[in-house]
Amino acid sequence: MAENSALEPKQRILKAAISLFVQKGFAAVGVREITKEANVNIAMISYYFEGKVGILKAILEEFFERYSQMLRDAVTEEETTEEGIRRLIGHMVDFVRENTELAIVAYNELPLDLPELAELKVEKITQMIGIMSGLIKRFGLDPEDIYHLGMIGPSLISMVFMNFRIRSILKNVFKVKFDDAYYKEFKETIATLFLSGIQGIAAKKQMQKRGKT
Amino acid sequence: MAENSALEPKQRILKAAISLFVQKGFAAVGVREITKEANVNIAMISYYFEGKVGILKAILEEFFERYSQMLRDAVTEEETTEEGIRRLIGHMVDFVRENTELAIVAYNELPLDLPELAELKVEKITQMIGIMSGLIKRFGLDPEDIYHLGMIGPSLISMVFMNFRIRSILKNVFKVKFDDAYYKEFKETIATLFLSGIQGIAAKKQMQKRGKT
Repeated sequence: MAENSALEPKQRILKAAISLFVQKGFAAVGVREITKEANVNIAMISYYFEGKVGILKAILEEFFERYSQMLRDAVTEEETTEEGIRRLIGHMVDFVRENTELAIVAYNELPLDLPELAELKVEKITQMIGIMSGLIKRFGLDPEDIYHLGMIGPSLISMVFMNFRIRSILKNVFKVKFDDAYYKEFKETIATLFLSGIQGIAAKKQMQKRGKT
Repeated sequence: MAENSALEPKQRILKAAISLFVQKGFAAVGVREITKEANVNIAMISYYFEGKVGILKAILEEFFERYSQMLRDAVTEEETTEEGIRRLIGHMVDFVRENTELAIVAYNELPLDLPELAELKVEKITQMIGIMSGLIKRFGLDPEDIYHLGMIGPSLISMVFMNFRIRSILKNVFKVKFDDAYYKEFKETIATLFLSGIQGIAAKKQMQKRGKT
């Protein structure tokens, strides 16, 4: 824990919790395990957070904070739609590569149906859709059409995140070496897949609209 | 547990374990919890399985068995490529809808890096690629190009599975009602997204090939 000793107790707790949650999942980790790994007194947990759920909430807040910032940086007005999507997916992959543990905890524990987290999730996801709404509109899709956004948005996120979740399988089955060349190709492949995919959806919607009028 | 009492002890153990693993995750569930839920003596676990990992292995085997059968049923030779993909995605969605808990346990625990499961995962995933190879070829993609299949295949799987993992979020954020009409639209949207996406990848590969010759 030498590398952590320079961190404030609060940061040490978060760091230890993220690492333990990735390895075992939120439900399997005890508060005492976190204090031991973080080298803090158990009273610190109540002082900084409200128990284990409070720690997870803080982790999700940190994830959404950084993730939204990344989205804001990625979405600019100057580019073409294709450039915009390629840039966005490039930023997403870099983000998960640089914050792998944080991103995997968020992805794995997001479905967790705890009342303490419900409001946070609704608020942050709505905020993310807001950031992306300009990009969504450019595809001829309607940001108010949350029915379809709820199908397409999670698809894009899971395309990117899944790859990091199953690294050990990709290594064993597909003999992947996770270097810069791999991620360059990964970004291009996922961007082409999603870009062509969403263009297909927009084209279909246009046809349906014309069919109706 | 009245509904379970007609099942054999082995099936009761599997059913109880699937349900507990979905709720809490594999790592958080104890063997005693499973025996209690399944209403069996703890000796039964050693008799039928080799401990908790043995139970998970049996669950993954059941998942792969049924999932591969579904893929075999979905992939026929008579259709056009578009019909093939739409049919495949339709079957995938129906499968996860009908076997939600089994599918979610498999999806959630697949990344788990346990030596007891490594061989099974490599074998079954390789088998799945074999079943799909005809469909993969029709897109002008090479089934031997596992580098790209390892990017595209997991994307498709996670597009479908993600939706079931985050049902509570979709309900709260997007006000989704998970009825037949929703899943009809979900199948069409995901199929169009993936189909147009993979056509875009194939077109790009063709262009790159032509550029080289």
